[in-house]
Amino acid sequence: MSVTAPQGFRASGMAAGIKESGAPDLALVVTDPSGPFAAAATFTTNRAAAAPVQLSRTNLVATGGRCRAVVVNSGCANAVTGARGEAAARATAAAVGDALDVAHDAVLVCSTGLIGIHLPVDRVEAAVPALVSGLGSGREHAAAAAEAILTTDSHRKEVLVEGAGFSVGGMAKGAGMIAPNMATMLAVLTTDARVAPDSLATALGHAVAGSFNELTVDGCTSTNDTVVVLASGQGVTPGAGELEEALAAACADLAFQLAADAEGTTRVARVHLSGATHDADARLAARAVAESNLVKTSLYGADPYWGRVVSELGASGAAFVLDRVRVSYGQTLVFAAGDEVAHDRDAVARYLAAPVVEIFCDLGLGGGAATVLTTDLGPGYIEENMRTS
Amino acid sequence: MSVTAPQGFRASGMAAGIKESGAPDLALVVTDPSGPFAAAATFTTNRAAAAPVQLSRTNLVATGGRCRAVVVNSGCANAVTGARGEAAARATAAAVGDALDVAHDAVLVCSTGLIGIHLPVDRVEAAVPALVSGLGSGREHAAAAAEAILTTDSHRKEVLVEGAGFSVGGMAKGAGMIAPNMATMLAVLTTDARVAPDSLATALGHAVAGSFNELTVDGCTSTNDTVVVLASGQGVTPGAGELEEALAAACADLAFQLAADAEGTTRVARVHLSGATHDADARLAARAVAESNLVKTSLYGADPYWGRVVSELGASGAAFVLDRVRVSYGQTLVFAAGDEVAHDRDAVARYLAAPVVEIFCDLGLGGGAATVLTTDLGPGYIEENMRTS
Repeated sequence: MSVTAPQGFRASGMAAGIKESGAPDLALVVTDPSGPFAAAATFTTNRAAAAPVQLSRTNLVATGGRCRAVVVNSGCANAVTGARGEAAARATAAAVGDALDVAHDAVLVCSTGLIGIHLPVDRVEAAVPALVSGLGSGREHAAAAAEAILTTDSHRKEVLVEGAGFSVGGMAKGAGMIAPNMATMLAVLTTDARVAPDSLATALGHAVAGSFNELTVDGCTSTNDTVVVLASGQGVTPGAGELEEALAAACADLAFQLAADAEGTTRVARVHLSGATHDADARLAARAVAESNLVKTSLYGADPYWGRVVSELGASGAAFVLDRVRVSYGQTLVFAAGDEVAHDRDAVARYLAAPVVEIFCDLGLGGGAATVLTTDLGPGYIEENMRTS
Repeated sequence: MSVTAPQGFRASGMAAGIKESGAPDLALVVTDPSGPFAAAATFTTNRAAAAPVQLSRTNLVATGGRCRAVVVNSGCANAVTGARGEAAARATAAAVGDALDVAHDAVLVCSTGLIGIHLPVDRVEAAVPALVSGLGSGREHAAAAAEAILTTDSHRKEVLVEGAGFSVGGMAKGAGMIAPNMATMLAVLTTDARVAPDSLATALGHAVAGSFNELTVDGCTSTNDTVVVLASGQGVTPGAGELEEALAAACADLAFQLAADAEGTTRVARVHLSGATHDADARLAARAVAESNLVKTSLYGADPYWGRVVSELGASGAAFVLDRVRVSYGQTLVFAAGDEVAHDRDAVARYLAAPVVEIFCDLGLGGGAATVLTTDLGPGYIEENMRTS
């Protein structure tokens, strides 16, 4: 169970004919409120933000955070598609709003897939009645929605986190073009917690900062990234921080699932950066290591070439004093005091062959810290991305 | 002919046993001045700069730009090697200085190869007498030096530019870990122009800014990047701008050779960015496109997926108004006014299959412009970098 596990939500997913393959490509999640409800979202920082991103942003403002539905299509990003793309996003919201008998601006729209391709909006409109009549609160309805939002993902990503008197469900899709702020990724979260739109937005912002925004696959920030949360208000009002904690746990779980299923990935690495002069420097240095093609290619080869890690730290722009830096793979310290620390290289290579590895970098300067989740870079990524048609 | 083509230079190259393969790994270029001579260099901005970089920087200052020799070893970067690494760099300069009968600080030292490995300085010291006795001004001497500085390069890179009454010769090595400011790259240039150290440094700085600093292979800035120029003063005093122009032409030629021979590369692309609000924004946007793994993977596949180009421009941080942006592959406009421009996709795909392609991006906002040279990202890069031992 994922998005339909909390009380007050229905979902559906189907094939609308957007994908040439005939695979599912249209999903809907709807709040059925019995009292106060709310919605919030965070969006890509890309200035070429897609039409659905712009429309969803507008609708959240127009309704004061009282949106009741999210419609997601995969197979077409409806990005950099001009006025026709904007009209297609509006038409999608209108069709769903009419079918649900809610205002058009109570509908959020997300799209994911190829950039620069026009959405076959007639197919979306034709599919909406079936999409709405297919809504349900069962596990299979949530799964159908989670399936329909996928692009190059190999399987669906779902999560459920239980709070005290409320729960948070979620689904997400990856799988490449993933960078902090945010990723070619969409996530839809649901909660039956009773919460005002402003509080929901704040909690979501913090949850995303510590999860999706600390995930990098290829450093590319897409035109469509969106994380939406809908709250039905059917459960309790959570205590201070409780909802944020549950949202953060759900986002972190989904972010890890995205990394593990990223295009062509064989290995996930967590880069733990400590000892920076401040947190911003820590993020800068951690990202430099996590996004380095040389570090990532070493990870693919399970090659303990720590020199590349030190080099990226030095080139990152973060405050850096070589003699203070310490680098470890897992529990094994390999670099300190400006020079290699004697270690069992074969043992480290075996450690690096695991599906999940940890790289610890301490700059030895202060209390700034950050963790970034990344993946290796192997031929699979190239296979996946070298040709789109 | 390259570094020995200008008057007043000798060079040599040999195998000193630094590389396990037994390939040439030690090179020397020496100025034989008959009057005023000069030297200048630009170095990596990496804060983990290698011991030879730190020593060369010190020696240039100590001599007021009157250095007379450059010794280069390949097979070991002597980077992040602590006090022992610093001693090894000093010992190298001392051995060469003694053999040439010049002050130790008149010798510049460059190293390239694996990071974090200690230089077998005893082998370097043992080889220096033969290195010095092998010095000569013939084409074969320049070639031997150019050969001995290579690491993963598939062939040597040399250049000769003729000025009015002077010439500029040069050699360089690539081939990965290449990013603006600068690259895992070393270049040694020679000129018989008569020029003061300060003027030489200024001319070199401008030449590097428009060539090596506009080359990116993987966005990784190494610990060892160095461009050195030696001037023998045996020729004329060039007119204003003449020496800079010749140095710039030599650097641009070498930068292109590095890109074309970069690790695993099948294709070189020039990203021409115009219409930015200022040049710094133009560089930011051009680099975002040039360093994007998704754009580079598309280049490998000769896939005209212009949506990724637009997305990177939007995510670059440069001032950006989607409706003003224009993108062309070669002569073919593919995106303008916020939407795709109808074009012959197959023709563009054929254009992208060429060894050198041009991508034009106009932001439509102002007069800022920049060009960045990049490469595709294919399985060859991963093969080359996934394991170092």
